[in-house]
Amino acid sequence: MRLQPLHHIPTAEDIRATHLAIASMIHRTPVFTCRSIDAMAGASLFFKCENFQKVGAFKMRGASSAALRLTEAELANGLATHSSGNHAQAVALSAKLLGVPAYIVMPDVSPAIKVAATEGYGARITFCSNNQQARENTLEKVVSETGATFIHPYNDYNVIAGQATAAKELIEDTEGLDAIIAPIGGGGLMSGTALSSRYFAPGIKVYGAEPKEVDDAYRSFKSGRIEHNATINTIADGLRTNLGEKTFGIISREVDDILTVSEESIIAAMRLVWERMKIVIEPSCAAPVAAVLSYPEVFAGLRVGVILTGGNVDLEKLPFCQ
Amino acid sequence: MRLQPLHHIPTAEDIRATHLAIASMIHRTPVFTCRSIDAMAGASLFFKCENFQKVGAFKMRGASSAALRLTEAELANGLATHSSGNHAQAVALSAKLLGVPAYIVMPDVSPAIKVAATEGYGARITFCSNNQQARENTLEKVVSETGATFIHPYNDYNVIAGQATAAKELIEDTEGLDAIIAPIGGGGLMSGTALSSRYFAPGIKVYGAEPKEVDDAYRSFKSGRIEHNATINTIADGLRTNLGEKTFGIISREVDDILTVSEESIIAAMRLVWERMKIVIEPSCAAPVAAVLSYPEVFAGLRVGVILTGGNVDLEKLPFCQ
Repeated sequence: MRLQPLHHIPTAEDIRATHLAIASMIHRTPVFTCRSIDAMAGASLFFKCENFQKVGAFKMRGASSAALRLTEAELANGLATHSSGNHAQAVALSAKLLGVPAYIVMPDVSPAIKVAATEGYGARITFCSNNQQARENTLEKVVSETGATFIHPYNDYNVIAGQATAAKELIEDTEGLDAIIAPIGGGGLMSGTALSSRYFAPGIKVYGAEPKEVDDAYRSFKSGRIEHNATINTIADGLRTNLGEKTFGIISREVDDILTVSEESIIAAMRLVWERMKIVIEPSCAAPVAAVLSYPEVFAGLRVGVILTGGNVDLEKLPFCQ
Repeated sequence: MRLQPLHHIPTAEDIRATHLAIASMIHRTPVFTCRSIDAMAGASLFFKCENFQKVGAFKMRGASSAALRLTEAELANGLATHSSGNHAQAVALSAKLLGVPAYIVMPDVSPAIKVAATEGYGARITFCSNNQQARENTLEKVVSETGATFIHPYNDYNVIAGQATAAKELIEDTEGLDAIIAPIGGGGLMSGTALSSRYFAPGIKVYGAEPKEVDDAYRSFKSGRIEHNATINTIADGLRTNLGEKTFGIISREVDDILTVSEESIIAAMRLVWERMKIVIEPSCAAPVAAVLSYPEVFAGLRVGVILTGGNVDLEKLPFCQ
């Protein structure tokens, strides 16, 4: 099923249509609970397990949503993107499922598992230096050489409409949520989560979680303009990017608050989920778990939906392993 | 619901009654699939996720089954056992749920996470040297001092009837299995798996998986008498024990074959499940996954049930982490 490209903030109907269209390209992931973590948090937590999503992360939702909005002619030339990992895999798998080529620009510091997985989906990878400018320049070159369409990792309403389907499912599958929390990197998931919450569960609180070390979204939220990170010293490799103007626009209006968490609390939360829930999650989605545990004054007594964004971790480099 | 103690090999009716009785003390765990591991195995695998079981392992089934067969007077004095880990936690939690004390004898080399978890359930722990004789002597002392009832980790029909419920659920929740495979340590799970397969899915093949380094069950199966391990050099800490006469009796009659696997294949299989399925499993249940991948001539083209026995791993000591 093809969709029309979005040039506006996705409406409830846009998100519903997107969900129907991408259904065959994604998994409807389960919602897990954990009594011992609930006891520690003093809250009832409902974990949306996007680590079980295709490519191991929610990014498959946004990439497939964007791909299904291209014309036949555009699609034939393939999909392209720059990404530190999960979005790359999602674009690669979307292209594979649709039978077209994928061209991926990746920073040369990307985790080995993410590079291998992206290659495994048949994508052609071009490495670049680990900064925004190098990514953009390299991508531009790839796009001009191939005619492929660039799928932005987050600052694209077509992508946001796809990411919104994770919170839509969580809301549909969980009774009486009081709040929902997601991590903020570029803000695509956060934007989609906020929109779905407003449309499908009006009245619930919407929070973002962000590492203190890369608190650009927190500062942007407070200052009212897009702020940037001077350094990217966080283990949460998916959260190092800055907001875009589209995601900032949605987040500044629709999110109730952004909570920042320390690196130590992220690592501890990641380990806690592995130990108690027996599931593999990546550091980026340990940030909201850390936030729920670090801010009991916000969450105690509530029913809180927590989006676990992905499970792509380099198992040879774990922060708690000796 | 209380049950009568079993002094015979559990019948189909015994296992059904056990399943009903323990239902409130266990989780009905999900069955997961993984397309990429299927592709590697050339088979359709159905993973019974006992890593999501209470205490993180199938042992909760057998311990609760045995506890529910004690009289009020026996129960009041508490439960006791010796165990390298998961069975200890299961006895401790069963005692806690039934409101009676638990006394656990553990080898002093037990993984820290398992000791902490057992203490967390309120059990009183007595450490001993890491050999069978020390365990048994220390346990005998604890039992004579407290009057608690010893729950054997595996060589007990009451325990076997409980472990059998894992395969019963897997068979109920999966269409048309051709084969089922479980790891063999003391043989409690293997015995229960074989019985449930014969009763509830007659005609399917039943396999055991065992590390080459502790292949006592394999040798016992071939020789027709209980063999012992000279050394226990395997990462699969749950599979180091020898068979008992009850488990050997069932396994020698009801199991089709026992397949041995190398340490390297166990570690690779464990890592594969973590990476591709995003779930935490312990080395003991990586053995059947390794067997399915190591013996394509046995499993190719089949629908195979694989019991993932547990997820209690010391995250600070992972074989693939640098």
